[in-house]
Amino acid sequence: MDAVCSHRRKTREVIVGSVVVGGASPVSIQSMTTTDTHDAKKTLAQAQDLFSAGADIVRVTLPDKAALSAFSKIANEAAGPIVADIHFDASLALAALESPAAAIRINPGNIGDNDIVDAIFVAAKKSNKAVRIGVNAGSLEKDIAEEPNTSLSQKLAKSAKRFSCRAEALGFTNYVVSAKVHSVKETISANRELAKTLPEVPLHLGVTEAGDAIQGTVKNAVALSTLLREGIGDTLRISLTEDPCLEVEAARALLASLELRMLGPEFITCPTCGRTKVDLITLAKEARARFSRLKKPLSIALMGCAVNGPGEAKAADIGVAFGDGYAAIFQAGRIVERVRAEEALDALEKRIDAI
Amino acid sequence: MDAVCSHRRKTREVIVGSVVVGGASPVSIQSMTTTDTHDAKKTLAQAQDLFSAGADIVRVTLPDKAALSAFSKIANEAAGPIVADIHFDASLALAALESPAAAIRINPGNIGDNDIVDAIFVAAKKSNKAVRIGVNAGSLEKDIAEEPNTSLSQKLAKSAKRFSCRAEALGFTNYVVSAKVHSVKETISANRELAKTLPEVPLHLGVTEAGDAIQGTVKNAVALSTLLREGIGDTLRISLTEDPCLEVEAARALLASLELRMLGPEFITCPTCGRTKVDLITLAKEARARFSRLKKPLSIALMGCAVNGPGEAKAADIGVAFGDGYAAIFQAGRIVERVRAEEALDALEKRIDAI
Repeated sequence: MDAVCSHRRKTREVIVGSVVVGGASPVSIQSMTTTDTHDAKKTLAQAQDLFSAGADIVRVTLPDKAALSAFSKIANEAAGPIVADIHFDASLALAALESPAAAIRINPGNIGDNDIVDAIFVAAKKSNKAVRIGVNAGSLEKDIAEEPNTSLSQKLAKSAKRFSCRAEALGFTNYVVSAKVHSVKETISANRELAKTLPEVPLHLGVTEAGDAIQGTVKNAVALSTLLREGIGDTLRISLTEDPCLEVEAARALLASLELRMLGPEFITCPTCGRTKVDLITLAKEARARFSRLKKPLSIALMGCAVNGPGEAKAADIGVAFGDGYAAIFQAGRIVERVRAEEALDALEKRIDAI
Repeated sequence: MDAVCSHRRKTREVIVGSVVVGGASPVSIQSMTTTDTHDAKKTLAQAQDLFSAGADIVRVTLPDKAALSAFSKIANEAAGPIVADIHFDASLALAALESPAAAIRINPGNIGDNDIVDAIFVAAKKSNKAVRIGVNAGSLEKDIAEEPNTSLSQKLAKSAKRFSCRAEALGFTNYVVSAKVHSVKETISANRELAKTLPEVPLHLGVTEAGDAIQGTVKNAVALSTLLREGIGDTLRISLTEDPCLEVEAARALLASLELRMLGPEFITCPTCGRTKVDLITLAKEARARFSRLKKPLSIALMGCAVNGPGEAKAADIGVAFGDGYAAIFQAGRIVERVRAEEALDALEKRIDAI
């Protein structure tokens, strides 16, 4: 396998509000609100934060009928497409399809009844909405779960195929499929199996219950980079037990590191060591807060060492290397300005704005 | 490429104090202190934290002669092998080889003089210490850096080969090689090139200046998982602009997700959503603090939803699913106890201790 990605699998386009998933569209980034949906104000604010951070699509749980008016307000006012997350209760799925949601996510295995699943597909078709058919290792249908001599990834693909066939039989094709498990290895093999089984269907990638910031990021990056390199995956969510804005940050970093989609600046920051005279961890967070709004794919270096810094980061578009009390601003590998350390980020910002 | 790793490249064993790097030994985890080395107490405490977190080898910068006695005290008292990080000043390299350090890390490109590099190899051989020859895209020798029609990865491999040949000519073989750059793609190709060019030499992997917690973890996970899957890599450091204990946590998660080395528990934690009634992010951090000391590769689930939780996490060895005010402890997919939510971690700990 090469360091870069193979050609993307050719899938059909699925319309999720203003975002196209699949086809030739770039791999889209999803995340999910963690606030109480009944609290429309708080949830809308979090959804907007996620869109500002770079999410293309945001999912919001619709836990009960009482949350429906709040949910509708959120979907109506959000800066991008909102997906209703539905569990168990098919009537909520039907209600969401009449709301301003762009799509719904169902796990047909926990809806239970095939006729009801069919009714959801029919309603989605009628309302021009998208559906994510999300199968999950923890909630496979009983007959599939108990099938002997069948691997977990084959079972997940079988379950997805079953519901995909029902949708197609009803003439409904505006759906994507996901198969989520919490093992990296099974995530890879399940999605390879799905790609084979459902060649035209866009796939939503993710490792479920992946863990907290570091472990969750590692598991998702390992699994999803393997799949994306093979051309598999049209949209993704990196689930973390953390502030969901970090999910978006991780997704952006993943797509950038695979050179699939450059979204805003990349930060080149040294890990600091006993030579560093400033609090680079805090400065790096401050720089991310200031500059991650940029849409341009700029590489910005923050180096804790005035001796090695400019040399080691000379490939960066712009950067600052901190010495003892002062800082050197460098651009295209050449020092262009020296300022006091505490003025470094302001000086950097001025130059970045000029680019 | 398969979901699991190919056979490890067959390298020779390099002795770094009590740790063997290369050969049939497991991929070792390295990190680096960020404290001021002159402060022996603080730096030793951080080194011990890193060893407790699971680091096999810890690097400490030796910035000047004045730090030598503190450095020696640290290397003497640390729970594992300490590597002296040397920049520019060859006399410090020679001093470190006479100290209790297990190894030194040099960048021959910034030592400058070949005779001095030779003297370092001779001294390392005499003192039975290891050397890491660390070449870096930012500090290649001028003649190599300016070579036309040569890719960066070829240049890095050429530079490493040059110093490797000098070491071997002196009969010194107790060294590892690293080539660090901050692009994922170049990290992959440079290490592939090294693996070809220096077939017997153990490789130390890492992406340099990778960034803060999330971006840095993504870049390292993508690059290093690709290489480890190909059987390339004997030891690694995930550099983050963060508390270095997170570097160790990321490295453990990486090796576990590739099923290369299971070190302690894996946490299966849901990303929370509008259905969650507890502060699962805080509970997950608390669980990691309590249980990451375990040496057994146990999977521990923390789910924010009493309805989906036990089912979705039934593959976990043990777990807790939080409802509204209460929590269900489950083991091997079966609920074994119900407790008040605030007692859940204590109840979990009791059962984990019993396993």
